[in-house]
Amino acid sequence: MQRRILDGDLRALAQAATLVENQTVAGRDLIAALFPQTGRAMIMGITGPPGAGKSTLVDQLAKTLRREGKSVGIIAVDPSSPYSRGAILGDRIRMQDHHSDPGVFIRSMASRGHLGGVAWSTLDLALLLDAAGRDVVMIETVGVGQDEVDIARLGDVTVLVLVPGMGDDVQAIKAGIMEIADVFTINKADLPGADRLEQEIRAVQSFADAVERKEAAPVRRVIATDGKGIDELLTVIRSVFEKRGNQSARLERWAFRLRELLRESLLASISEDDIQRHADLVAAKVKDPYTAVEELRDQLLAT
Amino acid sequence: MQRRILDGDLRALAQAATLVENQTVAGRDLIAALFPQTGRAMIMGITGPPGAGKSTLVDQLAKTLRREGKSVGIIAVDPSSPYSRGAILGDRIRMQDHHSDPGVFIRSMASRGHLGGVAWSTLDLALLLDAAGRDVVMIETVGVGQDEVDIARLGDVTVLVLVPGMGDDVQAIKAGIMEIADVFTINKADLPGADRLEQEIRAVQSFADAVERKEAAPVRRVIATDGKGIDELLTVIRSVFEKRGNQSARLERWAFRLRELLRESLLASISEDDIQRHADLVAAKVKDPYTAVEELRDQLLAT
Repeated sequence: MQRRILDGDLRALAQAATLVENQTVAGRDLIAALFPQTGRAMIMGITGPPGAGKSTLVDQLAKTLRREGKSVGIIAVDPSSPYSRGAILGDRIRMQDHHSDPGVFIRSMASRGHLGGVAWSTLDLALLLDAAGRDVVMIETVGVGQDEVDIARLGDVTVLVLVPGMGDDVQAIKAGIMEIADVFTINKADLPGADRLEQEIRAVQSFADAVERKEAAPVRRVIATDGKGIDELLTVIRSVFEKRGNQSARLERWAFRLRELLRESLLASISEDDIQRHADLVAAKVKDPYTAVEELRDQLLAT
Repeated sequence: MQRRILDGDLRALAQAATLVENQTVAGRDLIAALFPQTGRAMIMGITGPPGAGKSTLVDQLAKTLRREGKSVGIIAVDPSSPYSRGAILGDRIRMQDHHSDPGVFIRSMASRGHLGGVAWSTLDLALLLDAAGRDVVMIETVGVGQDEVDIARLGDVTVLVLVPGMGDDVQAIKAGIMEIADVFTINKADLPGADRLEQEIRAVQSFADAVERKEAAPVRRVIATDGKGIDELLTVIRSVFEKRGNQSARLERWAFRLRELLRESLLASISEDDIQRHADLVAAKVKDPYTAVEELRDQLLAT
């Protein structure tokens, strides 16, 4: 299978993607074996609030890349709520545009809730697509929560998509995710408020610069539905990717990734039965929460 | 100190709150000692998107409770981004209304980022206020991210505050937090769109009911700035609290709390140096990420 994936065999890729997505041992061994062959693709994380037009943007970027003859992999990560599944899967249907093009490989993946393994699955899929020779891999996440943002940050370059007229919600976005963007994209830039949004981004950046003395991330405007500004956006993303190709940036990226993977791996080991048993004693005030957590921790570490 | 706190001494309470907030050993020992005296307060978690008017609502609930002669504790948890601090601290200033009233104890707390200890600090503060005889404790969090929501869920009753006219953002809220609300509050209910928002909430609920067969959470409308609907909201919150006073609900709550605390405790143990050292080897492709995470895990578990 390994050989066929490296040769770009589509059926082998699809089979491997399923192994990896389901976090099987075979999938894990495969990625470990393919790992030395990775590192050639540009892996982009694309995030932003619902309604920002991320799927349309990803779609347009894929079209532009295809026109250049580049091959593309898309990993679309949906939130885990059972209530939203319908609405958000609707978005994906647009991507079926590419279904007859072997140069675009798409996987839609549900994030499996809080203690799940979505960081592992996402990174493994990205590494798989990289090893399979895809020139560009896009990880698209829905929502502004920290969990979603962390998934998008698994890529080499993080693109934050915003739209004019979000009002108070710019506050929400400022609160935790402005600083993670390597490239800001103002989508639906023909709507009123695009200037104001750009000013707000710049204002947050100049404050951030003063605090952290880092270079301000570029801001680009697009109208994804018309394909306007996509070429320029791609150029900017590539130049950021080049800059982040050095040793220290790669180290920083892997440190972030390992931290996320370790986090997931630890949380996955927590036993629900143990939790219930201790909760029982704490609810009855037989045990205080500190002792309970300490004991749970010891149990986990002993396994 | 323990005696003075149980007697409701305000200076002792303020000192203890600082010990607890900074996660000192003394604070931890104090909470463990006070733990058997807890369980009398009603602990409310209040969450919702920025701009929903949560601070105003908390303020009005505090006023209503004070008129009834009840004592109140407020824990306001801010997001961790350095960029938002100014804007959100502005909100807190309104709460200074209560500064001359010893019946209202307020602590504003920064959530300390991803790997931080905000769940521990918040729950400990709530338990401290409970032990100190506060009748009602309100935990207010800013933002819709999963981390914020989890903090609000540390309470006995979770109140989700929404406002009309959020448009697409209802999608964002549906994606992961609709199901955690014990009580829905539509604030600014005089704005156009309140009916539509209520219909949307009911629609999501009827879908959720079909899936999980659980009782629909009540929906109440308020205009927090005018104090309208606050009495009725409080009545509803109390009736939900009564229902959740049984053994199985308490067990479920403690299971959730222990899970959150254990999660935090594990993440706090990860050594940044170890991460860097392994990231170095992975970036150089000397080691694959699986091996690296496994080794990091073993190291952590060995300490």
